[in-house]
Amino acid sequence: MTESYAASVVGASGFTGGELLRLLYGHPNVDVVQATSRSYENKTVGSVHPNLRGMDLRFSDPDDLESVDVLFACTPHGVSMERIDSFREAAGTVVDLSADFRLDTEAEYDEWYDGHDRPELLADAEYALPELNRENLPGAELIASGGCNATAAILGLKPLFDADVLSGGERIVVDVKVGSSEGGAGGGEASSHPERSGVVRPYAPTGHRHEAEIEAFLGTGVSFSAHAVDMTRGASATCHVYPDDPVSTGDLWTAYRGSYAEEPFVRIVSGGSGVYRYPEPKAVAGSNHAEVGFELDPRNGRIVVFSAIDNMMKGSAGQAVHAANVALGLEETAGLEFAGLHPVGAP
Amino acid sequence: MTESYAASVVGASGFTGGELLRLLYGHPNVDVVQATSRSYENKTVGSVHPNLRGMDLRFSDPDDLESVDVLFACTPHGVSMERIDSFREAAGTVVDLSADFRLDTEAEYDEWYDGHDRPELLADAEYALPELNRENLPGAELIASGGCNATAAILGLKPLFDADVLSGGERIVVDVKVGSSEGGAGGGEASSHPERSGVVRPYAPTGHRHEAEIEAFLGTGVSFSAHAVDMTRGASATCHVYPDDPVSTGDLWTAYRGSYAEEPFVRIVSGGSGVYRYPEPKAVAGSNHAEVGFELDPRNGRIVVFSAIDNMMKGSAGQAVHAANVALGLEETAGLEFAGLHPVGAP
Amino acid sequence: MTESYAASVVGASGFTGGELLRLLYGHPNVDVVQATSRSYENKTVGSVHPNLRGMDLRFSDPDDLESVDVLFACTPHGVSMERIDSFREAAGTVVDLSADFRLDTEAEYDEWYDGHDRPELLADAEYALPELNRENLPGAELIASGGCNATAAILGLKPLFDADVLSGGERIVVDVKVGSSEGGAGGGEASSHPERSGVVRPYAPTGHRHEAEIEAFLGTGVSFSAHAVDMTRGASATCHVYPDDPVSTGDLWTAYRGSYAEEPFVRIVSGGSGVYRYPEPKAVAGSNHAEVGFELDPRNGRIVVFSAIDNMMKGSAGQAVHAANVALGLEETAGLEFAGLHPVGAP
Amino acid sequence: MTESYAASVVGASGFTGGELLRLLYGHPNVDVVQATSRSYENKTVGSVHPNLRGMDLRFSDPDDLESVDVLFACTPHGVSMERIDSFREAAGTVVDLSADFRLDTEAEYDEWYDGHDRPELLADAEYALPELNRENLPGAELIASGGCNATAAILGLKPLFDADVLSGGERIVVDVKVGSSEGGAGGGEASSHPERSGVVRPYAPTGHRHEAEIEAFLGTGVSFSAHAVDMTRGASATCHVYPDDPVSTGDLWTAYRGSYAEEPFVRIVSGGSGVYRYPEPKAVAGSNHAEVGFELDPRNGRIVVFSAIDNMMKGSAGQAVHAANVALGLEETAGLEFAGLHPVGAP
Repeated sequence: MTESYAASVVGASGFTGGELLRLLYGHPNVDVVQATSRSYENKTVGSVHPNLRGMDLRFSDPDDLESVDVLFACTPHGVSMERIDSFREAAGTVVDLSADFRLDTEAEYDEWYDGHDRPELLADAEYALPELNRENLPGAELIASGGCNATAAILGLKPLFDADVLSGGERIVVDVKVGSSEGGAGGGEASSHPERSGVVRPYAPTGHRHEAEIEAFLGTGVSFSAHAVDMTRGASATCHVYPDDPVSTGDLWTAYRGSYAEEPFVRIVSGGSGVYRYPEPKAVAGSNHAEVGFELDPRNGRIVVFSAIDNMMKGSAGQAVHAANVALGLEETAGLEFAGLHPVGAP
Repeated sequence: MTESYAASVVGASGFTGGELLRLLYGHPNVDVVQATSRSYENKTVGSVHPNLRGMDLRFSDPDDLESVDVLFACTPHGVSMERIDSFREAAGTVVDLSADFRLDTEAEYDEWYDGHDRPELLADAEYALPELNRENLPGAELIASGGCNATAAILGLKPLFDADVLSGGERIVVDVKVGSSEGGAGGGEASSHPERSGVVRPYAPTGHRHEAEIEAFLGTGVSFSAHAVDMTRGASATCHVYPDDPVSTGDLWTAYRGSYAEEPFVRIVSGGSGVYRYPEPKAVAGSNHAEVGFELDPRNGRIVVFSAIDNMMKGSAGQAVHAANVALGLEETAGLEFAGLHPVGAP
Repeated sequence: MTESYAASVVGASGFTGGELLRLLYGHPNVDVVQATSRSYENKTVGSVHPNLRGMDLRFSDPDDLESVDVLFACTPHGVSMERIDSFREAAGTVVDLSADFRLDTEAEYDEWYDGHDRPELLADAEYALPELNRENLPGAELIASGGCNATAAILGLKPLFDADVLSGGERIVVDVKVGSSEGGAGGGEASSHPERSGVVRPYAPTGHRHEAEIEAFLGTGVSFSAHAVDMTRGASATCHVYPDDPVSTGDLWTAYRGSYAEEPFVRIVSGGSGVYRYPEPKAVAGSNHAEVGFELDPRNGRIVVFSAIDNMMKGSAGQAVHAANVALGLEETAGLEFAGLHPVGAP
Repeated sequence: MTESYAASVVGASGFTGGELLRLLYGHPNVDVVQATSRSYENKTVGSVHPNLRGMDLRFSDPDDLESVDVLFACTPHGVSMERIDSFREAAGTVVDLSADFRLDTEAEYDEWYDGHDRPELLADAEYALPELNRENLPGAELIASGGCNATAAILGLKPLFDADVLSGGERIVVDVKVGSSEGGAGGGEASSHPERSGVVRPYAPTGHRHEAEIEAFLGTGVSFSAHAVDMTRGASATCHVYPDDPVSTGDLWTAYRGSYAEEPFVRIVSGGSGVYRYPEPKAVAGSNHAEVGFELDPRNGRIVVFSAIDNMMKGSAGQAVHAANVALGLEETAGLEFAGLHPVGAP
């Protein structure tokens, strides 16, 4: 008999909340029992998320949480830390998709954000990324799902640290290209279609808060810059690194295979023939897969590392479900089997 | 115990073939045992379809077909009629996704195409669309999957005939907007990105062959015109009709509910609040759903009918799997559960 | 010596206002002396319109109008009728780009809009479209620039009436596809990039107000429906008409050449070879040209008419400058020589 | 009296050739007397470039060159070096838009390309970029127009060298995002709309030939990587540099103003309010302007430099006309006054 867990999504009218509903609705071991939204209370989830028009569920009051096994919080940054006690009261496992519990210490948090209401909980929260932290997730009660850009960068760079190609003192440039869903639903003038379509637009070119996560989990600072480009879903990180000691392409294959050969959601894509030779967000749109790849630049003593994810999936909702699967002892890939589409436009 | 059927895809390196592989790979009752491609023989299916990089299957020689329960033919128009005997020898159920067997008579075929090699088979082939032809599909040995534009138009207009709002003599304008995947993989100058992006480009503005299918299955001619627009997947048909007798919006709801209330893959979308008030290809991208809707124009005595599908799914590969499910006696929705994405860009 | 006229743009921070500033800035006979904006007072025009970063002009208070020769009003519908006296006091020629003065009678206005403050002025205003109304523009004091969709439809259909192919009693379907700039700057959720990109979205499928203009200037009603598609600029109208008497393709060429052979801004595009065989918004992006074309559908007794404009140019700002040129006795093409770009994406 | 020069465009059916025709057609001092194309001989230029439908000119035989003042060669790499004698015989000033004459020495050329037919001419050719090489252009007989990516990178970085912020030994990462027109007309599978739309696709991630130009003209090597993104026109370079000595934002403003305050085609864009705070290709689409900007990253000791151009304009055809203007002693901005559009989609 299949185990079944009750789940709720708090803040379910946003993009991430909708994606979670989609995933959980198709999850063989999960029943969605509640989706909250203050703005859309009593409306069907399909009235906001057109792909969910067939789902028999209405948004309910976020102040009236039902008891569930697992609660996913998709509220804006700062809300989870305020409501964390009620979340934990409602659910044995809370997966928070905001930035509230990603960093380990109050000092780190204060450096990048503005004061934490519940700093004593920071050390208890587990970072969701299973490729980084699988061993600490089973039974976890508070899980912090990672930032999309940080996830892309960490997945691309991690093998170089695992294999000692990098030691931590090197300069690392992380040049990221992201889609418009990263800005969330609603949008203002900058994300209106006439202004946002066709862009290559620098934003937060320095001092982006995801630097904090990358630094916290890779153990080294990075020089991060993000650019908005014309896609809806997707985050692509190109990392430029200069190892102190020379490496070969073979060394790089060994490093990446060493880190990811057994990972169900990471594909190594580097070279080959055909149209798709390096990681691309299009190739993983809608799926929980990450693609990572690399190229050696002997002329400049450089390694170029590419990684690509769907920011709504591996970068948020998919990562959250993956972590919950590990936390609850379920099959890691349960509910996350969708392969993505080909062709797909600007996903 | 779950039944399991062996399936093969002939012409699997094209867009439709890739979509079929994706669907069949995730189908609970189907094992894909062969995917043929002359150009890519021995390459992995993932080398052409990046979303299938995890699938352990290589393209094989199309002249060496294995025995299977169901064979899907994704070859260019004209190939299936040549190879139909070998297809039927290899499989008890053949689903042809080309135009070769869609029309019923040689006369109809000759009017729109150039001579049929096997006209005696035309009458035996069943049109795939289950919403139109469900009762004839169980046990069918030769199934002709419909054209994407025809499917969109037929699904939009059918309820008006079912409910006698239209009787067949009226003029019907079908104005269609389609994505670039309809042109298939490869492409020439007109479908190159610089020329094709951002277009509203009339093509085949008159005399489009899908008129034939619509006429054959609705029993009335239509004035059909297609436009290329900037999306990869999707077909949207806007039909403008003028009924002889006045109807009310209530009559239209009755008509559409009468035809589709029990259909697992058709949603009626008309009016309401929010962003998505009428059928849109975005809302069904990647899924096998069709959306249909309508609006009454009392000033002009007109009904405007909207329908939207993913041309790769309900318009080809999804429709084919749906029909095969009915033919084989499987759950109709098996392998077709994917709900689509929100948000999604230009899918 | 070159004549020079002083011009002002009221409501200059919107898309249409910015386009007017661009055109007037490059106009050999016009000096821009004022650009008003309540929201951006004292900011440079380049701070809102990045293409105008080199223009030495700041937004000023709309309540403090300078005396000029020609004033272009780009205010929202309803504002011009309130402020028309101050506009006319400030300028001998007022070109209004809103819908306030497009219709001829209060009765027409009331049927489509909500009460007019100054109905007595309706009969005095001249409709801007020179192809329709050139003879009445010289010396005009109040000019009403047409709606973009109406302009596209009128230009496409007019030759059929000029040449008596249509007489006015026939049913005419006008199926329009438009870009996101039509919604103006700012935007809400429906025009946010994640929701708006990749769409084929019906809006105002019946009862669109531009029907009123088309009816007023063609003398016959039309069945109008608009769809948002993925481009920023552009409006494309496909008209489906059924003449009572049969016509030949030669008749159509005669009709269209008869109406447009001498027009500096109308190109007839129909058939031929290459990628661009019918009118396309891409081909006129940024330019004041309209493309019109047609195809005969003998099977259905139908003529399909295509027309394409840049909604910001021929559909608003370009049309306004063209009309002002005629009104002031200048060269018609002055300031409107830009040819458009090739290739261009989703302009 | 206005001077007038006769001009021809060799290889005029490609994207760059069409852009040159557009510019020269509107140039006050130039008459286009010949446009050659072997494939389209005798067809009108408007049959290939739809924006030029009004231009009374047909493609002619490239082997039958007329005598002109200035000849623009838009032939594929390798053709100009073969045909250079006939070009120079036909015209006193030859502007070559291929890579054939960009580098100064045979040794440099051989390192990046495959053998030069006329290496003795390399030293005579002047690099077109006026911001770099204005003083050598007047009277030049052979001008090599620069590569688009190299132009973007050089314009962004040059002020840092001019002002001694960088000295040449530092590592410089140049991460470039480009549109699909860079691949030229025609296209293959990778540039077909379904595969190319919505991408962030690394290509030539290392060893890109534009590194050679950047190195030649900045005097230092760079680590260059390019990504295809979803626009048709545009190249955007983000350069990440780490100066040895600390600098302030004020120092950077001084450096950039020092290099560009008098330049007619370079805008410094950094910070401020509104939607467009840094350089963006959209803001210069169709125009010959470059935007450059910067941001200081004190945490990482980094300067991030942004530059954006239209690859068809400042990156090729516009730069070529600009250089020809200087060579012929004309007003630098003649024929290059177009300001660009706002809004504009994916230009």
